Amino acid sequence: MSDHRPVVVLLTADGLEPPADLDAIRELADVRTATAATLPDAIAGADVLFVWDIFSDALEAAWDRADSLRWVHVAAAGVDAILFDGLRSSDVLVTNARGVFDGPIAEYVLACVLAHDKQLHQTEEHRRRGEWVHRETRRVAGRRALVVGTGGIGRAIARLLCAVGVEVRGAGRRPRENDPDFGTVVDSAALADHLPETDHVVMVAPLTAATEGMLGADELAALPDGSHVINVGRGPLVDQEALTSEIASGRIRAHLDVLVTEPLPGDDPLWTLPGAHISPHMSGDVIGWRDALSEQFLDHLRGFVDGREPGPAVDKDRGYVSGA
Amino acid sequence: MSDHRPVVVLLTADGLEPPADLDAIRELADVRTATAATLPDAIAGADVLFVWDIFSDALEAAWDRADSLRWVHVAAAGVDAILFDGLRSSDVLVTNARGVFDGPIAEYVLACVLAHDKQLHQTEEHRRRGEWVHRETRRVAGRRALVVGTGGIGRAIARLLCAVGVEVRGAGRRPRENDPDFGTVVDSAALADHLPETDHVVMVAPLTAATEGMLGADELAALPDGSHVINVGRGPLVDQEALTSEIASGRIRAHLDVLVTEPLPGDDPLWTLPGAHISPHMSGDVIGWRDALSEQFLDHLRGFVDGREPGPAVDKDRGYVSGA
Repeated sequence: MSDHRPVVVLLTADGLEPPADLDAIRELADVRTATAATLPDAIAGADVLFVWDIFSDALEAAWDRADSLRWVHVAAAGVDAILFDGLRSSDVLVTNARGVFDGPIAEYVLACVLAHDKQLHQTEEHRRRGEWVHRETRRVAGRRALVVGTGGIGRAIARLLCAVGVEVRGAGRRPRENDPDFGTVVDSAALADHLPETDHVVMVAPLTAATEGMLGADELAALPDGSHVINVGRGPLVDQEALTSEIASGRIRAHLDVLVTEPLPGDDPLWTLPGAHISPHMSGDVIGWRDALSEQFLDHLRGFVDGREPGPAVDKDRGYVSGA
Repeated sequence: MSDHRPVVVLLTADGLEPPADLDAIRELADVRTATAATLPDAIAGADVLFVWDIFSDALEAAWDRADSLRWVHVAAAGVDAILFDGLRSSDVLVTNARGVFDGPIAEYVLACVLAHDKQLHQTEEHRRRGEWVHRETRRVAGRRALVVGTGGIGRAIARLLCAVGVEVRGAGRRPRENDPDFGTVVDSAALADHLPETDHVVMVAPLTAATEGMLGADELAALPDGSHVINVGRGPLVDQEALTSEIASGRIRAHLDVLVTEPLPGDDPLWTLPGAHISPHMSGDVIGWRDALSEQFLDHLRGFVDGREPGPAVDKDRGYVSGA
């Protein structure tokens, strides 16, 4: 792969800061900066696409101009936005921001678990109303969590929840026992069977045809009263309408960092339902996150220039790096 | 001590449920139920006072009638309310609810640490205003906590914070290294020296003459911008007026589960200051807490009836069980 200096297209958007390592990237490659509008012209003759505008789906419209493309790196954990059939069936390598978000999202999920069990949001509601209302809360140790998604982020979540005494299981494509992080992994295709014994269900699966809507009305109905849904994966993993009904009934509370449409439309009932704690897709975005993503691409690019596989390949049919 | 069936006074209050183990307690002792008003008559001839109305200071007014008292058990971790000079200088044993609150309060403190670093309360404020405002938050791993108070609860806090990667030190009366839970314990008499390197300061010391106001204006001024005060000990450990000023300036945020006056008076600025997250003295009160307290007294009473020391003695001069 080192027979010529590669051409890298940096796919960005107006108002987005460039990667901190751009100068170092330029030392290794010719860099063309593009937005969705200019991508078709920029991609012609390019070897590498660096998707810095992380939820962009602009490649599909530029695909017939991608005559030399060998590698697409997405600076995000989820690659659902960039994938399309032409890319899937090509031999273009796709890599993602594997690892960067593991610790940050695990901490965010633990924050949500504790906020729920210790009723922090209800306490703030009382405070705003000037009410001193003593209540009893729950021990977190001994609570039962099901982490749906057994990739790197799900594993980091499992380890952190275990560290504070939560009883954790995973849900994935291959049910098994004795997993080093989850112990038991139940079959994610039969999720409803395992939800009655779940206090906290954590959605962190990649969004694929197989996972879309996997937490649907039947699954939500199987959750016990007072249970807690956390979504840090992708909005469409959950039947948002069914979840909204369950939250409105007061039976379930939720922390939703991702939603079917982002930003959440202004008239959505989730904005005002007590029990719906929405946040703007920020669970993994700790101070320095963009620098970490920039550094990861630079590191991968060094491998690419040296003729090595730049990073673990996304299984484009499955939609994630498999065999974690 | 087993030469006669002991007389136990249960000091309760109107509206307070009796201990779940009251029948079992009655099998071991003659039980007189009293409130603050009836305590002077009830305490005459009694061997044991079981302070079930946990913040009661009624014993002092009844003290000259306590002609046979040998043991006072307080169903709380802090015994500051019940102590007075006559009790201190007597040979009456005082015990407390040692251990019952360790795990619950540690979890509550972890919830506060995570809520602060992940900005959960600010996210809820944005949600209430219908604002989708992405922000960057902090890694919790690597943050620096100082736990002021090295008793059982402080140790449980230290262990739980360490489990999620927080760098923990303790502050106590005897500075030392290589403490099994804290590693370094700094001198609590020189707190201001150690606060500039602290992101989260957790107040969990017992309230005594030596600890009152220990987090004062000078100490608060030594904390870095953006730091976080958690008080799960007693309100007067902190100079509440000075803390209010720091919160009002936006320099410090706080989770305050205890306050100088409880309930917090309706006109106190802490009710409405952004950055002041007050809760009604509930950090340790998990579902079943009163049953656990009842069971602990019953267990201690069995020891007392058998002629053993019913539980670890509170050092009445220091105001806590020492040598933890």
